[in-house]
Amino acid sequence: MEKVREIAREGRRVAKEDPRRVVHSFKVGLVLALVSSFYYYQPLYDSFGVNAMWAVMTVVVVFEFSVGATLGKGLNRVAATLFAGGLGIGAHHLASMSGPTGEPIILAIFVFVQAALSTFVRFFPRVKARYDYSLLIFILTFALISVSGFREEQVVMLTHKRISTVIIGGLSCVLISIFVCPVWAGQDLHSLLASNFEKLSFFLLDFGDKYCEVVENDDTKEVDKRKKDFDNYKSVLNSKSNEESLANFAKWEPGHGQFRFRHPWKQYLAVGELIRQCAYRIHALNSYLNADNKVSIDIKKKLGEPLRRMSLESGKAMKEMSISLKTMTKPSSSDLHVQNAKSACKSLTNLLNSGILKEVEPLELVSLLTAISLLIDIINLTEKILESLHELASAAKFKNKIEQPLFSEKPKAKSFVSLRSIKCHDEHVVTIIEDDGNNHDTSKNDNRSKEVSIHEKHEDGDTHVHARCVSCGHSSVCDVVECR
Amino acid sequence: MEKVREIAREGRRVAKEDPRRVVHSFKVGLVLALVSSFYYYQPLYDSFGVNAMWAVMTVVVVFEFSVGATLGKGLNRVAATLFAGGLGIGAHHLASMSGPTGEPIILAIFVFVQAALSTFVRFFPRVKARYDYSLLIFILTFALISVSGFREEQVVMLTHKRISTVIIGGLSCVLISIFVCPVWAGQDLHSLLASNFEKLSFFLLDFGDKYCEVVENDDTKEVDKRKKDFDNYKSVLNSKSNEESLANFAKWEPGHGQFRFRHPWKQYLAVGELIRQCAYRIHALNSYLNADNKVSIDIKKKLGEPLRRMSLESGKAMKEMSISLKTMTKPSSSDLHVQNAKSACKSLTNLLNSGILKEVEPLELVSLLTAISLLIDIINLTEKILESLHELASAAKFKNKIEQPLFSEKPKAKSFVSLRSIKCHDEHVVTIIEDDGNNHDTSKNDNRSKEVSIHEKHEDGDTHVHARCVSCGHSSVCDVVECR
Repeated sequence: MEKVREIAREGRRVAKEDPRRVVHSFKVGLVLALVSSFYYYQPLYDSFGVNAMWAVMTVVVVFEFSVGATLGKGLNRVAATLFAGGLGIGAHHLASMSGPTGEPIILAIFVFVQAALSTFVRFFPRVKARYDYSLLIFILTFALISVSGFREEQVVMLTHKRISTVIIGGLSCVLISIFVCPVWAGQDLHSLLASNFEKLSFFLLDFGDKYCEVVENDDTKEVDKRKKDFDNYKSVLNSKSNEESLANFAKWEPGHGQFRFRHPWKQYLAVGELIRQCAYRIHALNSYLNADNKVSIDIKKKLGEPLRRMSLESGKAMKEMSISLKTMTKPSSSDLHVQNAKSACKSLTNLLNSGILKEVEPLELVSLLTAISLLIDIINLTEKILESLHELASAAKFKNKIEQPLFSEKPKAKSFVSLRSIKCHDEHVVTIIEDDGNNHDTSKNDNRSKEVSIHEKHEDGDTHVHARCVSCGHSSVCDVVECR
Repeated sequence: MEKVREIAREGRRVAKEDPRRVVHSFKVGLVLALVSSFYYYQPLYDSFGVNAMWAVMTVVVVFEFSVGATLGKGLNRVAATLFAGGLGIGAHHLASMSGPTGEPIILAIFVFVQAALSTFVRFFPRVKARYDYSLLIFILTFALISVSGFREEQVVMLTHKRISTVIIGGLSCVLISIFVCPVWAGQDLHSLLASNFEKLSFFLLDFGDKYCEVVENDDTKEVDKRKKDFDNYKSVLNSKSNEESLANFAKWEPGHGQFRFRHPWKQYLAVGELIRQCAYRIHALNSYLNADNKVSIDIKKKLGEPLRRMSLESGKAMKEMSISLKTMTKPSSSDLHVQNAKSACKSLTNLLNSGILKEVEPLELVSLLTAISLLIDIINLTEKILESLHELASAAKFKNKIEQPLFSEKPKAKSFVSLRSIKCHDEHVVTIIEDDGNNHDTSKNDNRSKEVSIHEKHEDGDTHVHARCVSCGHSSVCDVVECR
């Protein structure tokens, strides 16, 4: 009894987690009941006979959760059945020419060769990734057609019936899955990516305050919620296989909603990979938050301002990117947040260079500097992610955004260092600078008033933010800031 | 033509990578040709009729690469067919009581309810992991039996034939897969783990020298080989899904070779997870090797001795563990290497504490200390891995090792600090110390001559190596060494 109740609870949980699962179950039941009507009604049974079971089988095997998976499997199955059916008839024809004694032997050889060859081809990595199911059905259909052809005289008729029932079964699945409450793998992938952005942003928005031990909101409910949000990033660590299969399915899907037929799903994987790289670092950073009390409050206070700004601004950039993906608009203000984060990096390095570390104990140093190095790494990755998202935005033709940036610390104009650098051939830097009039500790940044200027790199008077990234095979975190 | 040649090349590569693939393909062809003989020979055909096709289908779908996967699928399929067959007959009986008009309607309702319910249950995570295939076959068989039962009068006879052909098909697969060149998933998992250990050891054995820029072997061929070995660790990063599916299959396998039926495969996953955690850190460490030239040779030279020893000793520990797993003997000398690595850690921290960092630039510091912190982290993980391997060794009843440790820098006795600490309830430390007489810079370690002593923790005069590990939810890397 307790067991039954437990199963019921689990059922409710599974349904609540994604209500589309319940709908999907109903859809499968519906199609199956529909297709089995082939058996019930005399006219249909007369034309297909026992072969109607192939329609039932096709439905059970092909009907998947998302449209893309169903379409992919359905097309694979139909194509493989057609092809194997044709070959099977050919094999049967060849074998029948060798008389009643030779026929079974030749057929057995055909089946052996075909099965062995196809099984071997299934080991090819490229084939395995996309056409594994096709080959399975190919082996199956060929064996069934060529072998049962040996018994039943009208092989062509048999094959024809088998193929048409498979097509009918596949078609019912595809139509129901597209037109009754469709579940689009593409849409799911899109949402997954947006929510991954959001999860990282939750961490980063809070990290700075937590690390520097700024007193928290007293409302325990709020604190609990934020604690949960804070740890949410962990699910990003293992999202790879999920993303890959969704992208694989999405390729089969026709245009739907905001997505065209050839939506750049591959670019989603590239962005997703970078997000995951960032999550790995966040995971490492998190351990410094939870376990390490070695770094004294004193030094944390001294470095607190730029540290918190680094974390906050990269969090904001992530949040913006999440919104940009959700609304399918170009990520406009993220560049600004990334630049703010980098200017905070610069302030931090200036502080470090100012000899503040002289009196820090070596063990504190290891902890502190590793955390800083990870945070810098995260900011560099944020920039890379943004670049990748820009590529996605232009490939997927995202709209331009009209509204103001989501976050504005002080209302409206003249509150941000808006510093957008576009590297041209790694030689020139186009810097668009809006006056800030706001002290961001970027003391060396002396450009003032709205202007668009083109500097020769290494020849302008600016301190150059010259960031490269560990994980991507480029150079390391540590040569982040070069000051002249 | 070029395409054909390319495919042939790919085929050769796939076959060379694992020759068992070719054997497997032959096995599938063989079983399929065998089972299709049901059709060819009159006596067999007479008893099974068209239902013989179920045997063919079962072979195609059930025959997998490893014994475990085949057994798992075969048992799942047979059990689901039996169960669904029974229910199908019941449903048919119930429906037939309601007269010729009601029968199809009631059957359709049954099929609908059964399919919807089973499809929903497939979403349960625990069911999905182990019984997904069972449920698929359950839906399929129930629909086929209850629906085709509507046509054919002798439902019980039909079900009986269907079940026996499925059993025959499944049994042939299982027998051939066990007795003709078996591929054991368990053996594969075992070898995978051993090779993962080896890959990490290649990196660690070389890392110290590379980081400290000690001049390399001039033989370019040798250098190339070592370069390749060095980068091999990358394949460990993504071994998770492979390990999990192998462990899943291995559970189904009967005892074979050195493995009993209930070999602790779960513990393999635990060890594998720790190895992967270590690989993540090695990946991060590697980036400091390739891209970062900021740390001056000068400081590297000063810290070189302990750094190289840390990397070398942890590499040796890994190598030992790999051999221990391969030979299924208890990892004896790994403890010693881990302790050597930890004593090198201690020397390093002493050096750091001695004020050697005073004149280092902050940017160098970030790079240097992050690398050190990662290396310390790796050593702590090595210890955790060793613990986990000890657990595996005792659960799997590994033999005791008789031979000498694999590595001995200087031949035989009196060359190592053999310092084995066994923590008892986190309070007492049993330290078994053999005299070394060898300067390892562990200047504070004053215990001499062979002895077995029990120290109250925090009360002996020794410097305590007090290591905890980031990744495992314990405290951080940085409070690695506490000196008094």
